[in-house]
Amino acid sequence: MLNVISINEFESLIENIPEVGGEYIDILDSHGRVLEEDIFSRVNIPGFKRSAVDGYAVNSSSTNFCDSENPKSLLLRERINIGEIPKIFLKDTECSYIPTGGMLPKGADSIIMIEETEVIGEEVFIYKSVNKNENIVKENEDISIGEEILSKGTVLGASEIAVLISIGLTSVKVKKRVKVGIISTGDELLEINEQIVVPKIKETNGKFLNLACIEDGCISKHYGIIKDNKEDIRYTIGKALEENDLVFLSGGSSAGNKDFTKDVIREFGEVLFHGLSVKPGKPTMMAKCKNNKYIVGFPGHPLACIIVYKFVILKLINKLYGKPNEEIIKKLEFGENYYKKTDRDEYLAVKIIENKVYPIYAKSSAMSTIIKCDGVVRIDRDIEGYTKGEIVNVISLMR
Amino acid sequence: MLNVISINEFESLIENIPEVGGEYIDILDSHGRVLEEDIFSRVNIPGFKRSAVDGYAVNSSSTNFCDSENPKSLLLRERINIGEIPKIFLKDTECSYIPTGGMLPKGADSIIMIEETEVIGEEVFIYKSVNKNENIVKENEDISIGEEILSKGTVLGASEIAVLISIGLTSVKVKKRVKVGIISTGDELLEINEQIVVPKIKETNGKFLNLACIEDGCISKHYGIIKDNKEDIRYTIGKALEENDLVFLSGGSSAGNKDFTKDVIREFGEVLFHGLSVKPGKPTMMAKCKNNKYIVGFPGHPLACIIVYKFVILKLINKLYGKPNEEIIKKLEFGENYYKKTDRDEYLAVKIIENKVYPIYAKSSAMSTIIKCDGVVRIDRDIEGYTKGEIVNVISLMR
Repeated sequence: MLNVISINEFESLIENIPEVGGEYIDILDSHGRVLEEDIFSRVNIPGFKRSAVDGYAVNSSSTNFCDSENPKSLLLRERINIGEIPKIFLKDTECSYIPTGGMLPKGADSIIMIEETEVIGEEVFIYKSVNKNENIVKENEDISIGEEILSKGTVLGASEIAVLISIGLTSVKVKKRVKVGIISTGDELLEINEQIVVPKIKETNGKFLNLACIEDGCISKHYGIIKDNKEDIRYTIGKALEENDLVFLSGGSSAGNKDFTKDVIREFGEVLFHGLSVKPGKPTMMAKCKNNKYIVGFPGHPLACIIVYKFVILKLINKLYGKPNEEIIKKLEFGENYYKKTDRDEYLAVKIIENKVYPIYAKSSAMSTIIKCDGVVRIDRDIEGYTKGEIVNVISLMR
Repeated sequence: MLNVISINEFESLIENIPEVGGEYIDILDSHGRVLEEDIFSRVNIPGFKRSAVDGYAVNSSSTNFCDSENPKSLLLRERINIGEIPKIFLKDTECSYIPTGGMLPKGADSIIMIEETEVIGEEVFIYKSVNKNENIVKENEDISIGEEILSKGTVLGASEIAVLISIGLTSVKVKKRVKVGIISTGDELLEINEQIVVPKIKETNGKFLNLACIEDGCISKHYGIIKDNKEDIRYTIGKALEENDLVFLSGGSSAGNKDFTKDVIREFGEVLFHGLSVKPGKPTMMAKCKNNKYIVGFPGHPLACIIVYKFVILKLINKLYGKPNEEIIKKLEFGENYYKKTDRDEYLAVKIIENKVYPIYAKSSAMSTIIKCDGVVRIDRDIEGYTKGEIVNVISLMR
């Protein structure tokens, strides 16, 4: 008897699965990793008052009523270098040259832009008045002490890492990488370098799962194609379970294989479900093993395997990382009538033609559908389909 | 005199820059690489007529008028194994067991699902009629000989590679990876492991550019922080130009530095522009060197550096790869009035609150803006801003 569950039930099922633990790593090694903790700044950025322009640091009151007709001259005391502390405490009659990013000297409260001045010998003529704080970047203008910078679950990209470096971090606590072991089974499957001899076919599900797991931040290892032999399958699952957090099986669909893959999975853990009420992807199964490890059996049909990975099992991976499931969605008009059964959710691959959405009618074996489509529409279980003109959400497959 | 150009002029400028060349690599090494050629299939997929279900291969005419009241019995001749060629040429009175994916035997034209049958001894009772081709996957149902599978410029992800493996490819011609050398200059800059001592600051632009180039498919090397010294800068630019296709300079903004960076760039190539009429990002420059190599000088202000990379210079990288510039865009309502000058294009970082777009007012030094914002709105040069309620395009920074 199959224990078939819906996508919603799957989502409830994984809700209580604990996340993987964290580890401190060097900030420069954190690219693509997931934050394990909220990050608060312990410093102000820039951390001191700096100039926003090239110009002269002055006390604003000394520029009162200056204009091109009535310039005032100030004594040039110092040429401040960027990265250095100014030496001179300015009096009202004095000024210092300051470059963009330079530190504001004591006695000054504003910067007059170089374009509004003229230097003659030791004197700087000021042709415009400035207000207090004009052309100054405040100590905490970018980031304030105590401010939350990034939250747990964020994937660290180039921008995030640059900001973390700016606040002085040298290491960061991230989620340990989820390890996935992938096993392909099936006597009909050929390796990449083997000649296609009908009716054998190239193994692609394992290759897809391996690369997709890498794209989604996991460490992934493909254990190769295991022949339909109970002992070999048992041995390989055991090894993969020892070395990984998740074991993904892409079953060959020969009759014998189906049975003993299922039997072997039972030996290693408790079957949580055997069957998903989703199209495509019904023959998906999942078992819970000891130490919070899981085995997922993927459908053998390639399109079903890809859809189930991207729209179902990726949620499990994201849950382990404590990462939100982000989908890029476009709202567009359906271009024709489309009917479906109300016994299951459906992930329908679609083409977008002149901003209208058209279904691609494909069997779940037709893998190329995933690269021919412009996105996927999820149609909930109890919905009978869409009529021409209805607005639907197209989920992008763009990464 | 600055040779300042607009974003549109920049786009015209790079239009004729030649793409990088191609190389054949192993298909399993092609993850993330860019296709150099259109790919057409030389085979049909699946390549033979296969069963879409578990059942019995029959000649459909032998099932005419079968139903549960009037079953017909057929002699079971063979249990076809997946991946093997059927041995028996079926007569009308015969059938063979066939698993999902199994090859259709000669003499059969359809499959009756196992659920519609009953086996008694050597005989299979058929409880339903089937039509010709029912439950059969055609030879070219997924992919036909001569069909275009993927086009030049496509980035190869897990799905694309799986499809290429399915059609028998063992290697693939991809663009050579663009090599980028990154040089940071500025006496005020500190390395990650150096203690922050005001008014010095952590170097972040080089770190950002290095990781961003990796995200965008380049091989990137950071030559570190070079002190403001003409000879050192000249030597490092020369070395980086020799080793890379592009050299990115993130200038410190000390007065001396600005001048000699510009002078040194001139020694290596022809300055194409010096200044972009864009906010933020004006102090951007680009020079053409020999062998189709380019030097880009980025603005020193961190937010400007990031915006110029993501929205301007990334177009140059994509052009070298022959890759389209794909942006994820959301159409949303502007939440307040916003005015700008009409002398330049603007990339405005925005927050989305309850589906409305609000500008973030930030100086171009405020790097954290890029991780606080929900996206960026490009406001064209001659547009004076937006009024509350106007619909704008928000470009996502999600990768």
